[in-house]
Amino acid sequence: MSIPPGSTPPDELQRGLAFERVAFFSDAVFAIAITLLIIDVRVPALPDDATADQLLKALGATVPAVFAYALSFTTIGLYWLSHWRRYRLIARVDERVVGLNLVLLGLVAFIPFPTSVIGEHGDLVPAVVLYAFAQAAAGIAGTLTWIDLWRRGLTVPGLSETEARLTALRGFSVPVVMLGTLPLLPILGTSAVETSWLLLFPVQLLLNRMVRRRGRSP
Amino acid sequence: MSIPPGSTPPDELQRGLAFERVAFFSDAVFAIAITLLIIDVRVPALPDDATADQLLKALGATVPAVFAYALSFTTIGLYWLSHWRRYRLIARVDERVVGLNLVLLGLVAFIPFPTSVIGEHGDLVPAVVLYAFAQAAAGIAGTLTWIDLWRRGLTVPGLSETEARLTALRGFSVPVVMLGTLPLLPILGTSAVETSWLLLFPVQLLLNRMVRRRGRSP
Amino acid sequence: MSIPPGSTPPDELQRGLAFERVAFFSDAVFAIAITLLIIDVRVPALPDDATADQLLKALGATVPAVFAYALSFTTIGLYWLSHWRRYRLIARVDERVVGLNLVLLGLVAFIPFPTSVIGEHGDLVPAVVLYAFAQAAAGIAGTLTWIDLWRRGLTVPGLSETEARLTALRGFSVPVVMLGTLPLLPILGTSAVETSWLLLFPVQLLLNRMVRRRGRSP
Amino acid sequence: MSIPPGSTPPDELQRGLAFERVAFFSDAVFAIAITLLIIDVRVPALPDDATADQLLKALGATVPAVFAYALSFTTIGLYWLSHWRRYRLIARVDERVVGLNLVLLGLVAFIPFPTSVIGEHGDLVPAVVLYAFAQAAAGIAGTLTWIDLWRRGLTVPGLSETEARLTALRGFSVPVVMLGTLPLLPILGTSAVETSWLLLFPVQLLLNRMVRRRGRSP
Repeated sequence: MSIPPGSTPPDELQRGLAFERVAFFSDAVFAIAITLLIIDVRVPALPDDATADQLLKALGATVPAVFAYALSFTTIGLYWLSHWRRYRLIARVDERVVGLNLVLLGLVAFIPFPTSVIGEHGDLVPAVVLYAFAQAAAGIAGTLTWIDLWRRGLTVPGLSETEARLTALRGFSVPVVMLGTLPLLPILGTSAVETSWLLLFPVQLLLNRMVRRRGRSP
Repeated sequence: MSIPPGSTPPDELQRGLAFERVAFFSDAVFAIAITLLIIDVRVPALPDDATADQLLKALGATVPAVFAYALSFTTIGLYWLSHWRRYRLIARVDERVVGLNLVLLGLVAFIPFPTSVIGEHGDLVPAVVLYAFAQAAAGIAGTLTWIDLWRRGLTVPGLSETEARLTALRGFSVPVVMLGTLPLLPILGTSAVETSWLLLFPVQLLLNRMVRRRGRSP
Repeated sequence: MSIPPGSTPPDELQRGLAFERVAFFSDAVFAIAITLLIIDVRVPALPDDATADQLLKALGATVPAVFAYALSFTTIGLYWLSHWRRYRLIARVDERVVGLNLVLLGLVAFIPFPTSVIGEHGDLVPAVVLYAFAQAAAGIAGTLTWIDLWRRGLTVPGLSETEARLTALRGFSVPVVMLGTLPLLPILGTSAVETSWLLLFPVQLLLNRMVRRRGRSP
Repeated sequence: MSIPPGSTPPDELQRGLAFERVAFFSDAVFAIAITLLIIDVRVPALPDDATADQLLKALGATVPAVFAYALSFTTIGLYWLSHWRRYRLIARVDERVVGLNLVLLGLVAFIPFPTSVIGEHGDLVPAVVLYAFAQAAAGIAGTLTWIDLWRRGLTVPGLSETEARLTALRGFSVPVVMLGTLPLLPILGTSAVETSWLLLFPVQLLLNRMVRRRGRSP
């Protein structure tokens, strides 16, 4: 049977497309999860003749939800950044990678739920614990996928073991901060633990500096 | 009329883009449908002075919705995986393929509705039946599209009949499990049938093994 | 200043990317608009001890919303198909094209609103009129963008005037059916007019056949 | 270790993909933010036996929300247009660019919240101030990212300083109009200020003309 005209060159292009689709499908899930977060920032229904003061007060009441939005936007953003960074170092994907990637995406797409819970009940311990575990799960899944890929030789040729380890390490910043601060919950209370999550930023910067120093030199 | 500068090379690139757009538009619909699922996992409104116990109980009440989320994430993920796998074996698309693909996407984008119903009323027979039929419809549409593509010679040159058949078969794992367990509904009840849907995982793995064995050897 | 390594080849690739981004951004908006439609198909809140009969009845009450979903999925799908078809015939884009495209996308992204209105109040004249005008606006905007592109010579070199006209014509199927059936509203009533919109399918097939016959021969 | 077959050519293609993913992830966030806006245009629940008059009145009450939709669709559309335009002039991206881009996306994805507030409480001063600041923040973040890129030499080789400055300038149209009209709020009131935001269109066209004149000639 002859192939009719109008076709895309098979083989090479197909493979490239298959690889790209994994990346772009992941991008889409990350992008939707990150953008859906804003849906939970809502001003409660006010009377039709509400005054500016009432609106101001209602807006003030959304501050915890806005904090939750900013926090989850940051963590999902960091997860996407890790994903992006890793796919620069991956030479090819197989069905197992795609399957593990789906597990990761399922955990990322779950994050809007604990975000909504902590935005509304951030003063209650179960909300904080659920949030920390959900975030950590996504971070750990991403790192495990990377380790699996690397062990099975699917990464780009020149990648050194040090670089591979540091890449794994960077993905751990969110789980480390989230789970590391949980034991302080009974001592410090919910607000202090949630504030301590801002440690994400210095921890991330520290890891970046470490990677740059070690990954480049020897 | 001369074509002004600044253009994209037509023909070849256009064709590649047309092919890619079908894949990426599909990816986007899959990604949105899969990520929207979490919207239905909601903690009901609690009083402003809710205690940790009340929140825990409310979170416990979301377990069926979380199960529905995980289940539908898995099935839509498998449908995407089938789509991804098939587009590696397709050499070109025409308007009929694109039209059939739209029908498939319409059925996939419908899934969040039965998911929401089963998450809330999973103990009632109509919820289970609706869910099983909606899922099966998407799976069958995907397989029929593939069969049509293959029959009209739009697949890549070297594809053997065995491979084409096995590819068709794999897409059937969800419909087979969903429809196959429905007759047990009056005997076993809703919970048992829903639990039996976890058979998806062993069935999928079995099909994968079959495909690998037969697809490679002769 | 020298360009550091690690860069993407500029010029050619940039142009290709700029073109692709317009297509993919459009794809994303179409995909989201089409997938968001399902959000409005909801079973109303039932009591905790609802029976199967109550659920069946509630599901029955969602039939108009499901019809609205299917209808708008079809029209947005056809708009996407037109977009996809046209971009195969476009050689390049400039800022004016991108601006007009944004207007089109704004009208497409608006469609979930009238869809939600007609899904809930399909028996009332204002819902039908709003829906028909919103749909027609998106269809007309797409066709006008195409005509503008073609008049300014941004289409691919070999495109004949007949083909360009037929491409314009095909985009009109939705507006023609929607606006053409509106005058019958006072005579036939809302249900008959909404049912008559199923004419979309034969009209679309007819246009396709016309295009194939005329576009190919002379 | 030998690389198994089935891989994507690393290096070159990887870099291109890394660059593209930043653009497409951004496209997806823009597309979702812009399409989610319609979710807040809702007809309030009407009685089951509502008349056409009641529906018309309810539709009339959505006009402010539709105005808010159109306004935010325009501004996010302009932000996307700026993003698109800038990425045509960027030669490569590094992690800092990607990080700054995430900040921009976080501000863009935030816009649906103030849009929803102004759609419902557009007659109250805090709604107008919040909206103007949120919009301005996104516009300023985009421009700052561009300036940073340009200063660090990541733009395409031939880019003149004039062109770079004008590109920066164009992104400012929304912040200038939004913040520039705020001081008039106590004098003119909310409706007049909101109407004045339609100045966006002439300001944008003016900037476009300036850029075309200066950017091309010397």
